[in-house]
Amino acid sequence: MNREHMVLGAFLFNPQGDHRMSWRHPDAPGADIFGLSYFQRLAALAESACMDALFIADHVAMWDSYESNVAHYANARLEPITLLSALSAVTRDIGLIGTVSASYSEPYNTARMFASLDHLSQGRAGWNVVTSGMDEEAMNFGRDANLEHRFRYERAAEYLEVVETLWDSWEDGAMLVDKATGAFADPSRVHRIDHDGAHFKVRGPLNVPRSPQGYPLIAQAGASSDGRDLAARYADLHFTRYRGIDDGRAYRQDFDARLARFGRAPGSLKILPGIQPIIGESAAEAEEKRARLESLVPERLGVDMVSSWCGVDVSGMPLDGPLPDLPDEAHYNGQRTNLKRMQGLKEQNKTIREVARLLANAGGAQVMAGTATDIADEMEAWFKAGICDGFILMFPILPTDCADFVNKVVPELQRRGVAQTRYREGTLRDKLGLARPANRFARSR
Amino acid sequence: MNREHMVLGAFLFNPQGDHRMSWRHPDAPGADIFGLSYFQRLAALAESACMDALFIADHVAMWDSYESNVAHYANARLEPITLLSALSAVTRDIGLIGTVSASYSEPYNTARMFASLDHLSQGRAGWNVVTSGMDEEAMNFGRDANLEHRFRYERAAEYLEVVETLWDSWEDGAMLVDKATGAFADPSRVHRIDHDGAHFKVRGPLNVPRSPQGYPLIAQAGASSDGRDLAARYADLHFTRYRGIDDGRAYRQDFDARLARFGRAPGSLKILPGIQPIIGESAAEAEEKRARLESLVPERLGVDMVSSWCGVDVSGMPLDGPLPDLPDEAHYNGQRTNLKRMQGLKEQNKTIREVARLLANAGGAQVMAGTATDIADEMEAWFKAGICDGFILMFPILPTDCADFVNKVVPELQRRGVAQTRYREGTLRDKLGLARPANRFARSR
Repeated sequence: MNREHMVLGAFLFNPQGDHRMSWRHPDAPGADIFGLSYFQRLAALAESACMDALFIADHVAMWDSYESNVAHYANARLEPITLLSALSAVTRDIGLIGTVSASYSEPYNTARMFASLDHLSQGRAGWNVVTSGMDEEAMNFGRDANLEHRFRYERAAEYLEVVETLWDSWEDGAMLVDKATGAFADPSRVHRIDHDGAHFKVRGPLNVPRSPQGYPLIAQAGASSDGRDLAARYADLHFTRYRGIDDGRAYRQDFDARLARFGRAPGSLKILPGIQPIIGESAAEAEEKRARLESLVPERLGVDMVSSWCGVDVSGMPLDGPLPDLPDEAHYNGQRTNLKRMQGLKEQNKTIREVARLLANAGGAQVMAGTATDIADEMEAWFKAGICDGFILMFPILPTDCADFVNKVVPELQRRGVAQTRYREGTLRDKLGLARPANRFARSR
Repeated sequence: MNREHMVLGAFLFNPQGDHRMSWRHPDAPGADIFGLSYFQRLAALAESACMDALFIADHVAMWDSYESNVAHYANARLEPITLLSALSAVTRDIGLIGTVSASYSEPYNTARMFASLDHLSQGRAGWNVVTSGMDEEAMNFGRDANLEHRFRYERAAEYLEVVETLWDSWEDGAMLVDKATGAFADPSRVHRIDHDGAHFKVRGPLNVPRSPQGYPLIAQAGASSDGRDLAARYADLHFTRYRGIDDGRAYRQDFDARLARFGRAPGSLKILPGIQPIIGESAAEAEEKRARLESLVPERLGVDMVSSWCGVDVSGMPLDGPLPDLPDEAHYNGQRTNLKRMQGLKEQNKTIREVARLLANAGGAQVMAGTATDIADEMEAWFKAGICDGFILMFPILPTDCADFVNKVVPELQRRGVAQTRYREGTLRDKLGLARPANRFARSR
């Protein structure tokens, strides 16, 4: 494994920044979040700092259970595949990782789109596999409510198996393009996959030849046990959240055991915790920035978030009273990481008002607030402790906080020799020191 | 309706050109059909001639029923949404029309991708709706064979209804982005669609605001009666094939009647026949070019095509004997236009060998061969006869035949005042003189 430098990925879910109400900040963009040039400038900024990837998260629904969600939250966003494909034309080195739901799409289409993006970007595509945890999502795809958690993950594993087999269906070199003989492809190296499983039936072959990376990079986020197993089996990159070094150490150990169970080396999966950097000229200024962010949140939105995360409507309950009784995890089909967080906060006797503020103000990622040096210190400490291979950077306000990070923190990390100062040649896998997967059909010849 | 200029669309299915064995031609590209720069150059060429659109056809499968299909035919191609999204970043005016199958995708995803492409391209997106007629396609999506023809079209109509309603789910102006008050959107103008039909159940709203064109342009190809009805009900642009002016006149009359049945004005649908221009300095040179193309086709491929189109394996039958008994149209689930063509050829007592040569050498589009003046004459005559609103240009060999057309035929058409010499301002709909659709939710306020 290449641990010569820390992997840095710029996170985009709310295109205005990861703080939930980022769009209200004076520095945040307006309607330009639906044009390419805004994202092109962000990508150029990230490339100027030799960041490894853009990481675009997504939902396939509006979050609109409560009216405040629609009124106050910036739900609308461009679809990731289209956005990343457009960005592939105007970037050179940065990885292009996007979310597609394995629950609400067809494996043939997903395999083809990522293979195409990998070709178009000359080997920079990555797929963040999610199973989708919101009822609103399920209801856009013929269902009445979310799929059961375990079932979603079982199905996602089969989905990944199908997609990877499709990516192998053209062996490397199967395309001949021999104009003299008229042989376009070698039929003995183009394979039907004839998958017939519990959830999918797919014949293949894919109608795109094997792409530069063999398999586009596979990313996974979601820290439930099922989620971790999926990552340990299939992913190259795992996006998670740490509360600190001790938490990270335990998490890494857990993952190493899971990787071993799937016959993989401990270093073959890059673990990247998300962090929310808040940079000030002084610790006091950083604190001021944080307070400013909090002031952007309408209270009602926070309360409705508590309802969403708990799976219980708390809007009629006293704001200064305790959290409600929480549903049993085994029967909770939402994002279990969210429910776990609620359980922890309930144990700490937080009030609904306190939790509302907390939720609305952070996505759960570790805040690293302080001067550029403070933040570089903390990132370096995490990286050198071996608990992570880098970070997903969840800038509260875009584009300004990204620019600040690029101008102030990255040079500090580069000076210390932990962040790269130029890109390696080759595909995203090459740049990250990840192997190009062998082709299952070629192996069996 | 704007009939000031003929609409010109450059067709791309085989990226090497529309002749089935175009890839073998010395001028055709090789592996560069999987990189952006090849398509970027083609798009620049088309924009230099003020062509209205790129029209990317697609299948969601390899055509591989017979081994010769894999060996000799250039089956592999980039997925259209990714390719068009990348092209949106490096083009300015040209329409970006791509095929997505309504049979093998989810309406929410399709609505979102085209809305996003419409935003990214500032209003230049178009969706060519197909229902997919190949068994190979069905088998990549959980089925044993193709869906029944009528059922496919019924389902596609409901699919379109869902997609268009999702495109309306954010009214124009629903996005407020009022930083002062914290109102991101106006909940009274963001609508769940609560569609619950025979084939789809979709709640909405879409998580992308209404796009520049309101609805991306809707294109439809496929001349079966079900196909024509779908176009007459939903499409802005219909791609078809004419055998000549009389054929075109009857076709147009048929369409005008269908449009009337759906309450639409005769001119609200652009009808564009595909033509295959073969340009020579003289008629003799054009004929030579055509013969050269024929020489590229391995005989076996043609025979296997006859089997595919007839729905009957003819490989064991005498090459100089007649076509086999054909299946009944009512029970034929492939592309009925293909079957109809076979019926016509059978009536003409063509042999299998003759039909094999015919099929392998043309996609069924009218060949217009001759000097640039000859071709301009014929195009002008069709356009002025009112049978069509322009043409889909199916260049046999790319990029050279497109360059020839741009350099020789387009200036001739421009001199005659039938082809535009500069782009109109605005979206693709604006440029073509097509109205921006009203929003169904706004209408009912």
